[in-house]
Amino acid sequence: MLFRQLFDQSTWTYTYLIADLGTKEAVLVDPVIEQVERDLKLIHELGLTLRYCLETHIHADHVTGTGKLRSLTGCQGVVPENTHATCADRFIKDGEVLQVGDVQIQAIATPGHTDSHHAYLVNNDRVLTGDALFIRGCGRTDFQSGNAGTMYDSVTQRLFTLLDQTLVYPGHDYRGHTVSTIGEEKRWNPRFVERIGETSSLRNRQSYIELMSSLNLPNPKKIMEAVPANERCGNFATLT
Amino acid sequence: MLFRQLFDQSTWTYTYLIADLGTKEAVLVDPVIEQVERDLKLIHELGLTLRYCLETHIHADHVTGTGKLRSLTGCQGVVPENTHATCADRFIKDGEVLQVGDVQIQAIATPGHTDSHHAYLVNNDRVLTGDALFIRGCGRTDFQSGNAGTMYDSVTQRLFTLLDQTLVYPGHDYRGHTVSTIGEEKRWNPRFVERIGETSSLRNRQSYIELMSSLNLPNPKKIMEAVPANERCGNFATLT
Repeated sequence: MLFRQLFDQSTWTYTYLIADLGTKEAVLVDPVIEQVERDLKLIHELGLTLRYCLETHIHADHVTGTGKLRSLTGCQGVVPENTHATCADRFIKDGEVLQVGDVQIQAIATPGHTDSHHAYLVNNDRVLTGDALFIRGCGRTDFQSGNAGTMYDSVTQRLFTLLDQTLVYPGHDYRGHTVSTIGEEKRWNPRFVERIGETSSLRNRQSYIELMSSLNLPNPKKIMEAVPANERCGNFATLT
Repeated sequence: MLFRQLFDQSTWTYTYLIADLGTKEAVLVDPVIEQVERDLKLIHELGLTLRYCLETHIHADHVTGTGKLRSLTGCQGVVPENTHATCADRFIKDGEVLQVGDVQIQAIATPGHTDSHHAYLVNNDRVLTGDALFIRGCGRTDFQSGNAGTMYDSVTQRLFTLLDQTLVYPGHDYRGHTVSTIGEEKRWNPRFVERIGETSSLRNRQSYIELMSSLNLPNPKKIMEAVPANERCGNFATLT
């Protein structure tokens, strides 16, 4: 398997390029419209064929590159089921596997940041957590049908039950971390874990809900353009 | 082996945390002073003991975290031989191995960006290229005893002779790439390779020198403070 983490500095977004080295089939997860040229260049240089653009959810902070990539390459756009997207080629649901050559990408429903957010377990040893679980943090739960209690359940009952050594590749990072593990987050993520000295224990659901409701975060700068554009797979033209 | 790539957004610098999981001994390569708190927190959370801070060269774009980390942890500061550093605990030279538990970090002299720049081959399967080889680029050669001809020789005769599958982890990246391979750079790096259609051939030495002399890059913003501070391992106090 080829696995590349790519970064958009202006929105701190990670895009992931995953490919099977036998068939040379590739998938881009959470592409960013401003980085389409970079991503296509890399795909060409690596001799890959883009089969799918896969979204963890409808993003509020950046416009997806999916529409542009689809028109340039003929790839399919894949989004989680129940996503308000008018233009997806395929909807994926909890437990379903997207097969790319010999690479298996299994969807895990992880609502909370949005109501249809999914994470993706890749070849059973790494998980793309999107905006559910971040490294020592998590996505916000205060808009786009977000719900803190649902997020707590998604992270603690779905993601934290993966093997401790599972690598965690998030949708964003704001502190320059690139990767973590489930074991680390279960021990050190301050949103989900309370620590007294050297011991850690899972924060209870109500305490997490109260923590999330106290964050008072500003809206993402691009939310007014990003959400409607992403519901059209990043196709601006259809907005006018 | 534990291997973590960490990123400083303000200077696009990659720092690498490498550790042996048996002994829990760790080394930080090219730490950034503003990120010392982040790096120490991660080292603590992973249960590691910092043995070394290792520099690829004296940086002109950021102040090293080595001095601060050394005073906080008692780790050793390691720099390449012939580096103008007044405070290193150890100098490393071409071919020498820094052992961290079972992890081997072998120095490869790669002058050109500076006259004493070294790259580091980690466990024979990944190379930290510092400011010699970037992903589809390379470090500049126009100050700090830089020399384009020497850089050409370092990259083509030392780094490009590593196995094609060797992973390339650079000291900086400005386009959101995180990793590459020697094989990719030998085929697609526009500084060292000329392409006609789908065929690529190594640019000749004179052509590379002319390319590098035509770049006309502005000086790094922090050069006036970074170079003298780094020659003192990031200890500002000794400058006054």
